Order: sequence, then C-alpha cells, then structure tokens
Amino acid sequence: MISSLLPAAVNRPVDHVPVWFMRQAGRSLPEYRRIRGNGSILDTVRSAELAAEITLQPVKRYGVDAAILYSDIMVPLTAVNFGIEITQGKGPYVKEPFRSESDLARLRRLEPETDIPFVIETVKLVVEELRDSGTPLIGFAGGPFTVASYLIEGGSSKNYIETKTMMRADPSLFDRLMNNLAVMAVDFLTAQVDAGAAAVQIFDSWAGILTAAEYKRFVLPSVKLIMDSIAYFGVPRIYFALSASHLIDQIAVSGCDVVSVDWKMPLSTVKGQLQKSGNKLSVQGNLDPTYCFAPWDAIEKEVMRILMEGEGRGHIFNLGHGVLPGTDPEVLNRIVELVHSVTPGSLVGSV
Amino acid sequence: MISSLLPAAVNRPVDHVPVWFMRQAGRSLPEYRRIRGNGSILDTVRSAELAAEITLQPVKRYGVDAAILYSDIMVPLTAVNFGIEITQGKGPYVKEPFRSESDLARLRRLEPETDIPFVIETVKLVVEELRDSGTPLIGFAGGPFTVASYLIEGGSSKNYIETKTMMRADPSLFDRLMNNLAVMAVDFLTAQVDAGAAAVQIFDSWAGILTAAEYKRFVLPSVKLIMDSIAYFGVPRIYFALSASHLIDQIAVSGCDVVSVDWKMPLSTVKGQLQKSGNKLSVQGNLDPTYCFAPWDAIEKEVMRILMEGEGRGHIFNLGHGVLPGTDPEVLNRIVELVHSVTPGSLVGSV
Repeated sequence: MISSLLPAAVNRPVDHVPVWFMRQAGRSLPEYRRIRGNGSILDTVRSAELAAEITLQPVKRYGVDAAILYSDIMVPLTAVNFGIEITQGKGPYVKEPFRSESDLARLRRLEPETDIPFVIETVKLVVEELRDSGTPLIGFAGGPFTVASYLIEGGSSKNYIETKTMMRADPSLFDRLMNNLAVMAVDFLTAQVDAGAAAVQIFDSWAGILTAAEYKRFVLPSVKLIMDSIAYFGVPRIYFALSASHLIDQIAVSGCDVVSVDWKMPLSTVKGQLQKSGNKLSVQGNLDPTYCFAPWDAIEKEVMRILMEGEGRGHIFNLGHGVLPGTDPEVLNRIVELVHSVTPGSLVGSV
Repeated sequence: MISSLLPAAVNRPVDHVPVWFMRQAGRSLPEYRRIRGNGSILDTVRSAELAAEITLQPVKRYGVDAAILYSDIMVPLTAVNFGIEITQGKGPYVKEPFRSESDLARLRRLEPETDIPFVIETVKLVVEELRDSGTPLIGFAGGPFTVASYLIEGGSSKNYIETKTMMRADPSLFDRLMNNLAVMAVDFLTAQVDAGAAAVQIFDSWAGILTAAEYKRFVLPSVKLIMDSIAYFGVPRIYFALSASHLIDQIAVSGCDVVSVDWKMPLSTVKGQLQKSGNKLSVQGNLDPTYCFAPWDAIEKEVMRILMEGEGRGHIFNLGHGVLPGTDPEVLNRIVELVHSVTPGSLVGSV
C-alpha cells in the first residue's frame, strides 16, 4: 500500500486514509527498548544509525503511512549549548532558565552542518531506506511557545507562572525570545527538509493554556514565521497543539496545511470551523490514546466514528496525543489495518 | 457593601459585580498558615472551629462577596471510610482503588448527622458569624467524575487511563459508580444547605478531559441529578470545570444556575453559547490565576476587560482556577477593590 499522507495533507483525493501515530517510535515498542540503552534521549539522537533504526521500527512493524523523525523538541537548544539535561521519564531540565535580556545571547543561530550533523545524517539514512516504498519522513520541531515555556520555567510546569509573567511584564523580551526560537525551528526544519524530509510537524503541545487573544498576540506571529519560511520548500506543514479547541480560528490562519487536534472536539466541528475561515485545511487525529487500553470492539467503533467524521478526504488518522507507555503494539497494528481497510468514498457525507 | 452574589447568580440586577476567589481560604494567607498546623487537611476539616475560622479569614481580609466552605472533595468519601489519605501538597491517595463491582459496597450512603457532624457544625458557625453582614456561604462538593477519577486511579493522574478504560469496558459499572457519587454529593450538599449555606458549587475540575459525547453519556446524568435535587432548596447552583470550552452546550442543560469557566474562553463567547440554548444562565470567572503575578497595570487592564465581557449582569467575578500558592494577598485585595469600584451600568453593551 503506497502512502497517501502527502495528498491527504493538501486535501487531494486518496485511495485510503493515511495513518501514523505521534510517538510511534519509542517506549511502547519492545524492539525500541532492546536497542535504546540507558542513556539520555539526547545521546540516542546523536547516534544517527540508532536514531534512524528507531525512526524506521514503527514503519516496519505497523506499515504506517509516515515515519516521524525520532527527536526531541530540545535538540536544537542543546546543540547551541543552552544547558539542557533530559533524564528518562522526567522531561527536560534547564540548568539556568531564560530570565532576562542577557539570556538572548545564549540563543545563538543554529548552524545545522556543524551543530546537528547527526540529525541530517539520520534523515538521510531514513529517507534512503524508505525510498523504494515511497513512505515519507515527517520532520520534527518544537513550537516556539512550548520550547519557550521549558526555557523560562526551567523544566516542565503545572501553571506556567514564570512564562506568563514574562509575557505580561516584559512583552518585548518575550517577543524576541519567541522570534529567536521560531528562526531556530526554521533552521532545524530546513536542514531536515534539505536532507529529504517530505513534510514537517510543529509540536506546540502547551499552546492551549493561553487564551485566544494571548495566542494571537504572542504565539501566532512566530508560528506564521515558521510556516511561511517552510512554504518555500512546498512540503506540507502540520501544526499540533493540545487542548486548543478555543484556538482553531487562530491556527487556521497560521499558514499550516494540516491542523492536528486532540480528542476533545469532533473532527467535523474542527473542519467546520476551519472552513469558516475560507481555508481548505486538512485535519489530523484524533483518537484518544487511552482508547488503546479499551476492549477492541470499543476501539473499532471509535476508529470508525473518527473516520466518518474525517469523511475520507483531507484527513490523516492519528492519535490525539502521543502513544502512551504500556500501549500494546498489537492494538496499533489492528488500528492501522482497520483504517487501511476502509474505502474513503464510503465515508463521504457520513456525518 | 452588601453582597450581590445571590442576585448575580440568578441573573438579577446588582449594584456591584460580586467577587470571590476559588481557594481564597488557604495557603496563600499568612493567617491561615499560622493556625493550620502540620496535619492533613482532613484533620483540619474535622475541627469545626478551625475550619470555620479558615473559611472566614478571606471574608475578613478581602471583603469578598461570599465565603466558600473550607473542605476537600474527598471529605464525604473519607467519612464513609473508603480509605483515603491526603498529605500536604500531594493530593488524595486511595489505598484500595475502585476497580470492580464489589467495590460499590464500600460506597455506603452518607449519613451526615453521624458521618460529618463537623461539617454541619462548621457551616453553622460560619453562617452565624456572617449573619449580620449578609455575606452568603457557598457550600462545596466534588463533581462525580472528578471524584470517580481519584477513586479509580488511586490518586491524581496524568492520562486517566484506568478511569476511561472502565468507562469503555464496563459502562454499567461506571454508571453505577457515578450515580452513587452523585447521591453522595447531594447528601453532602443538603447537609450544608440545611445548616445555612446559601449557594452551592460543584467542583468538577477534570471533566474537561472528556469529549462532549462522553460527557453527555457518562457525566451529565449525574450532574443533572445533583442540580435537580438541590433545586428543591432554591439556592443557586454553580458548576465549575477546567478546560471545558468544548462542553459548554452540555453544561448549559445540566440545571446549574452559574457556569464557572477557566480563562481560555472570553466570557462573552461563553455567554453567547449559553444563550443559544435558550437559558439565561450566569457566568463566573475568569481571571487566569497566574495574572496575580503580573505587574499591577497588566492585572488592572485584564480585570477591566473581564468586567466588560461580563457586562455587569449575571456575572460573578472570580479566577479561572484556584488561588495559586505564592499569590500576594495584597493583589487579591486590590482586585476586590477594583471590581467593587465599577458601576455595573457602565459595563452594559461594552463588548
């Protein structure tokens, strides 16, 4: 079955609904745990052969319609020596958080050839391996707001007090940080696309904690900068945020091709809202990842409901968030088979 | 200034917009930390004089338009000996989580007079103290879904896998659990209203992790049971959930009088959606609690924006979630003064 991800991403007809899973490469796979070792994810990412193998594992096992680069949103920050540690299961830890104007100097421009040669090499290895099958590799970058929140808070956060306070107390400093992180994401993604990535996804998981007005003022310009810069390459651009039901109107005008949503809003509602803004954007999602722990008949019903909401066009099937640890790979296998077994034409007008 | 909470809650004209703060009684107050001691919140709640004093502290300090009973959503569960521990800063821990039908037997009917005499006594002491000022006391109960998630997960959770899996794998068991918890909330609130509480608030913080379809099927019936049972007393009923922008249409028909929302959606949008369903419900909120850490001029602007969104009628000013630890009480004081200084008539038609 030849991947239908690229046509689906730009809302062209497909012979099957494409499917892949956020965090498909990683801890839910036994073959991953076998080769992963005990080091930090950053160590693994620095070994191109290992990272390429991890990226390819779910493609081989599941026959998904895309590979997603095995990476972390902090990789470019680490490469410019911002001072970041990542320990397994704990998330990033920033030794000296971003707090004032002087910290801008620590965000020097990324030079991909010398800073992240291993990422370029990983992409090349994966693309070479996937060439015959035609399965695309999706490039990976963190959204500027989500990355900023880690830099300012010093790690993961519950309430984002420091981030929001900087936004309100020193908006121009916050803007400059966001702009620098957007440029860094562009450089990071450009290197991946140059090396053969056929699409990109911006992971902006925490943007949903903001109001629509705050998103518009503080986040949208930097997301737009990324989308507009990557437009040059003509590859589809996917944007993902969690709990962003209230931000759909803003995301619709960010310049992305695909809006990836969590499970809270039905895809038909998301599509309806996107169409209001005059765009023919595609959607990605949106099975609640906890559904993988339900009995199969409940999963089957929910997958079919989501496919019907997607109407077989301009829809990339995915989870609403990453694969959870403890997910049975056999369940993901069955979901791929089910999605691939449905004729897109049979889904038209089913909502 | 005589409290305007009760008329605002039922969308009647007011001479000032009422204001109070979720978690106004508690750790952000030095006078609370002085008398609180090191015991569990459950120990403190069991001492009626202490709990009454804590409940009254923010009324005295801030001049807010309501007292909220100092309590915890697990108090009735603890009273029927479900086996719950709460340690400071860690949230509830359930020794033997709810997992199967046999666990229903552990949820015996609450008998307020013998199980929670200290709550009844606390309410009486507070109401007696507030009688001359006319400031109402708001009764307190956890929403059945939020309580169920603690019972099933065994504590706080990140992904709610166990809760959602029970919902999908054994919906009738889940329904019975929800129904029992709704009856428990009714008994708990009835005791408070009988003792003098003049309004009630259901804290259903985690309901927003569900889809609208799941909320409608699994949560709404139990919330409606609570609202309809409390309707008997004629006291206003407030319902609060976090990240529930996608659930407004469901909450609108739950029978509540006031929809308390977080900061993500503008109040004008919430009001618009509530009016679509033909109801004249009031709204409560919705200052992002992290705003209390911003410079005063930013706070002032945001408070004024929210007051204008509220249009001076059917609006109870509050935070979008509880007061954060570390909040400067002086900031809350200034917010109360600012809200009280505005003439509701000047806010009409300002959106």
